[in-house]
Amino acid sequence: MSLPPAAIDLLNHPKAHATVVTVNRDGAPQATLVWVEALDGTVSFNTTAGRQKARNLQRDPRVVVSVQNPENPREYAVFEGTATITENGADDQIDRLAKKYLGEDKYPWRKPEEQRVRVDVDVTSVKGMGPWVA
Amino acid sequence: MSLPPAAIDLLNHPKAHATVVTVNRDGAPQATLVWVEALDGTVSFNTTAGRQKARNLQRDPRVVVSVQNPENPREYAVFEGTATITENGADDQIDRLAKKYLGEDKYPWRKPEEQRVRVDVDVTSVKGMGPWVA
Repeated sequence: MSLPPAAIDLLNHPKAHATVVTVNRDGAPQATLVWVEALDGTVSFNTTAGRQKARNLQRDPRVVVSVQNPENPREYAVFEGTATITENGADDQIDRLAKKYLGEDKYPWRKPEEQRVRVDVDVTSVKGMGPWVA
Repeated sequence: MSLPPAAIDLLNHPKAHATVVTVNRDGAPQATLVWVEALDGTVSFNTTAGRQKARNLQRDPRVVVSVQNPENPREYAVFEGTATITENGADDQIDRLAKKYLGEDKYPWRKPEEQRVRVDVDVTSVKGMGPWVA
């Protein structure tokens, strides 16, 4: 589905962080907080290739991304969808997110041995509470 | 495990909301935003008996509760644990949470036909970023 305009605004809010939820091999949920953006119709975030969430998503691409509205903490969006992991544009993205969240041109904690990856979530439903819910 | 003091402070912060993650029958993750508190050594929240998360937790009590630090959005705690659902004290709790988050003595959206339940999470690990991570 295409993202509602209000959801895109939320995702691009410079204070909106996302809780990314994946499923571990044993079926238990796994959650981490990440920087996020709307990108080409997807909900997109950045991680490194070796992290638990990346490994989980390679095995099971079902993902949930939950974002609270910094302007109104009662409001939040829950994006359910399918993740695609790519190295393409991942380095550009982490710098772009550093700009968005830190105001810095370059991601300051880059480690040369790390392979950054971009995770694009093709959204199948938007739930939660707020103007992004139909 | 017992909750680190910094985690208890976070859970009792009047602006800290929690993302509760359960697992649907088909193995996909499910996330919602809730009010939360530290209660008798557990991470505790309130819902109604019929909600998806309550039904999921009755089938599979593995749960993750993620809380961002309102004072420092880079910090967050991820509580992993096992949920116990009870009706005991659930009505008192929703009023107590209404006081915490809304400043109101009574939960204003109570529906007589709803059975409130309290979900206590016995925490097995605390992850994330912040002073609650060892």
